[in-house]
Amino acid sequence: MAVEQTPAVDVALFGALGDLAVRKLYAAMYFLEHGGLLADNTRILGLARHEHDAASFTQLVSDALHKHVDKKSLDDTVLERFLARLDYLKLDFSDTKGYTAITKWNKDSGSPLMVYLSVPASIFGVICENLDKSKALNEESRVIVEKPIGYDLETSIETNDAIGKVFAENQIYRIDHYLGKETVQNLLALRFANPLFGNQWSQANISHVEITVAETVGVEGRWGYYDQAGQVRDMLQNHLMQLLCMIAMEPPTSLDADSIRNEKVKVLKALRPIEGERLATDVVRGQYTEGTSGGKQVPGYLDEEGANVNSHTETFVALKAEVANWRWAGVPFYLRTGKRMSERLAQIVIHFRQQPHYIFDPDQRGLATNKLVIRLQPDEGINLQILTKDSGLDKGMRLRPGPLDLDFHKAFPTERIPDAYERLILEVMKGRQYLFVRRDEVEWSWRWVDKLIDGWTSRGVPPQRYPAGSWGPVSSIAMITRDGYSWYEEY
Amino acid sequence: MAVEQTPAVDVALFGALGDLAVRKLYAAMYFLEHGGLLADNTRILGLARHEHDAASFTQLVSDALHKHVDKKSLDDTVLERFLARLDYLKLDFSDTKGYTAITKWNKDSGSPLMVYLSVPASIFGVICENLDKSKALNEESRVIVEKPIGYDLETSIETNDAIGKVFAENQIYRIDHYLGKETVQNLLALRFANPLFGNQWSQANISHVEITVAETVGVEGRWGYYDQAGQVRDMLQNHLMQLLCMIAMEPPTSLDADSIRNEKVKVLKALRPIEGERLATDVVRGQYTEGTSGGKQVPGYLDEEGANVNSHTETFVALKAEVANWRWAGVPFYLRTGKRMSERLAQIVIHFRQQPHYIFDPDQRGLATNKLVIRLQPDEGINLQILTKDSGLDKGMRLRPGPLDLDFHKAFPTERIPDAYERLILEVMKGRQYLFVRRDEVEWSWRWVDKLIDGWTSRGVPPQRYPAGSWGPVSSIAMITRDGYSWYEEY
Repeated sequence: MAVEQTPAVDVALFGALGDLAVRKLYAAMYFLEHGGLLADNTRILGLARHEHDAASFTQLVSDALHKHVDKKSLDDTVLERFLARLDYLKLDFSDTKGYTAITKWNKDSGSPLMVYLSVPASIFGVICENLDKSKALNEESRVIVEKPIGYDLETSIETNDAIGKVFAENQIYRIDHYLGKETVQNLLALRFANPLFGNQWSQANISHVEITVAETVGVEGRWGYYDQAGQVRDMLQNHLMQLLCMIAMEPPTSLDADSIRNEKVKVLKALRPIEGERLATDVVRGQYTEGTSGGKQVPGYLDEEGANVNSHTETFVALKAEVANWRWAGVPFYLRTGKRMSERLAQIVIHFRQQPHYIFDPDQRGLATNKLVIRLQPDEGINLQILTKDSGLDKGMRLRPGPLDLDFHKAFPTERIPDAYERLILEVMKGRQYLFVRRDEVEWSWRWVDKLIDGWTSRGVPPQRYPAGSWGPVSSIAMITRDGYSWYEEY
Repeated sequence: MAVEQTPAVDVALFGALGDLAVRKLYAAMYFLEHGGLLADNTRILGLARHEHDAASFTQLVSDALHKHVDKKSLDDTVLERFLARLDYLKLDFSDTKGYTAITKWNKDSGSPLMVYLSVPASIFGVICENLDKSKALNEESRVIVEKPIGYDLETSIETNDAIGKVFAENQIYRIDHYLGKETVQNLLALRFANPLFGNQWSQANISHVEITVAETVGVEGRWGYYDQAGQVRDMLQNHLMQLLCMIAMEPPTSLDADSIRNEKVKVLKALRPIEGERLATDVVRGQYTEGTSGGKQVPGYLDEEGANVNSHTETFVALKAEVANWRWAGVPFYLRTGKRMSERLAQIVIHFRQQPHYIFDPDQRGLATNKLVIRLQPDEGINLQILTKDSGLDKGMRLRPGPLDLDFHKAFPTERIPDAYERLILEVMKGRQYLFVRRDEVEWSWRWVDKLIDGWTSRGVPPQRYPAGSWGPVSSIAMITRDGYSWYEEY
């Protein structure tokens, strides 16, 4: 297969001096340059309200790259080529007139304008409106937005409306960076290119599914911001729901963006609301107290800088979701995510059912299941737990779990695993939306999450305490134990 | 689980100075000693027609162990304990009177007598008769016999009758040493403890199966003997047919010997005869000509020492077997085995069918199958071929075969993989027959093989030539290619 050429674009980066841009976006685009994946005529215009000229901005980006790109990958020729693409425009985002400079800049090249909104959602509207008024946009233009898209269904509709007034849905690229991860895309290959897995991907053969996204960090000085959101809005509504969709969706007819996204929406629509009695049994909220993280004593959530002692915001949630459709009825999806957990870990575990009849040692019966473990963090890889015969002569036909392992770093050691942003930015340049979140996905996800949050708010029960450095409140373990299962731990 | 005690036995080893005993059997029993798996009172009596006393025989066994056991495992204390179990009796196997010494020897201990017939099948009858006449046997006695059991159905019945006159079927342990291999027993665990595989183990999900047993050696100075047999009688009738049975059998109700062996016999009965037109299309016989093996020039089969220039004996066979039952109808089992092949390799490959719909790159469609590779030689291991997404950014959703690997040596590095004979001898001591071949298995296998040999004999077509060091005649490749498949090679 010939390598596909990336079309040229003009990137207009709003928030060019912001944290995300400096830490991630320039590095991601640098790596595209490094891989020969940027068209010759692609240009990047940094936009922010601060005073800079092209030279000082270029210096700033160069510094960022020296800090955030590994030495081995920094190549003078590549760096020079990349920096030559940069330009800067000082802009007050509410100043309509200022936008005509963008229009003019883009007219010169005739390339599609790729607007990157690396700014708070509250100003998406004004930027879009000003771009439109300045006639900067045409059918080829596209816009990238980052989460959070709203705080609930209502505010997400406002945000989406603001963008939607100016951009059509097929021009809008909503990033959930989990979708750019190698292993998440690998879910498509695993499910749909491997009959061994694909044929058994339903309630007939799967007993339950676990999705864990555990962080070791706390709120990292963002207390005020985080406390308005909490772990459900910050992590569950987007990342975990997207993972759930990738696992649970029906096989799409093709890899087209809408084939995939239609199936994801169907999953979100099929999610059984957690309400009534289930609020007491199927959800556990937690808030960390002081403890140990990375060998250091760390404060509790309510003792963090800027904290409000009365906050009931959750820093942990575990819940049991159910996808009420023909494929998944009766299969619990155990989701959990939290801050200040015992280790940094993102993984999906698919537990296959036992066979109806069992002929090995009766005391090993509990072992006899297969598990497919898909690790996203810290090291991306796939691991299939199977059972083999234990190999000692004195063991008879004893069984032993034998992991079949595929660690991407070990299996393909010469290859760098690209950062999620590299892939996502490249896909926008190519105009392919299949790794981006469609408006109705955002909204159906909020519908379900809003009901959950409303439910527990009206119950008024505060989150349970868990010490920093643990796996969350004990009741999150009890929740899964009651069903006869346990959170997966590696052997 | 407490380690099960091995009961004490009195081993009467006929052919105590023979090649198998010296190369394999003493070493196997030494390792049982080393593992603490011989009962304190177990004794071993060497029997042969040569002049020896206990001391000289013990010296001979000690020499054999120093030659055939790795230094690391040779331990003076263990060796001393083992050698102390040995005794020797000079015996002309046709001398009925001489057997009373065995009876007397065994009476002293009262342990079950374990008769090991490491001698040509032609004298099984006279030994059994003499043991019986000398009242050496009771219900607890057992007998181990080695292949070949007959040259065809008729002679196998003669051999089995000769043993069967004196021993009941539940006292007879017919060795096929492939059944003692770790990986072959692992087939039971793989199929029956892993729902992921067990659920798909039929024509609905498996397209075809390959079984290859390739040797690099030639006839090794045994031309006269080998030429009477050929590869089908020497390897296919026993080892490959046993592997076929382990793969194709219905799930046994339990791990009892007869549960397993009943299912194996059903497979042999269900084998469709290769006759008529199929003799031309579904079997390829080969005979090696001069070539290269292990970097050295080696002679052709007809130029080996003692060779008969007109021999039509095959040193290679490839064939397409079909198990005509509900589980396997329409699934070809491609079997091949030969001498002077390109490498020493014994492996089973299960090819799973493609899924009906395919959504990835059209030019990669051929890749999109799963394969379970079970290696018996040279290194025992299991390897599952799955497909993952190719990881380069420029690859889009290209697929890549990603092996999930379990190499027993690497996975369990501190553990020795026991030789097949260790396990088999231990199982005889424990009185467990599930790894041994029942009479009807031998006979049903010969029925099918006899028909095959009769068929090609009556066609009178000589075997096809293949150069030593190759993968056999080109037509063995054409045979599988016509069906749209190819012999599996590692990536």
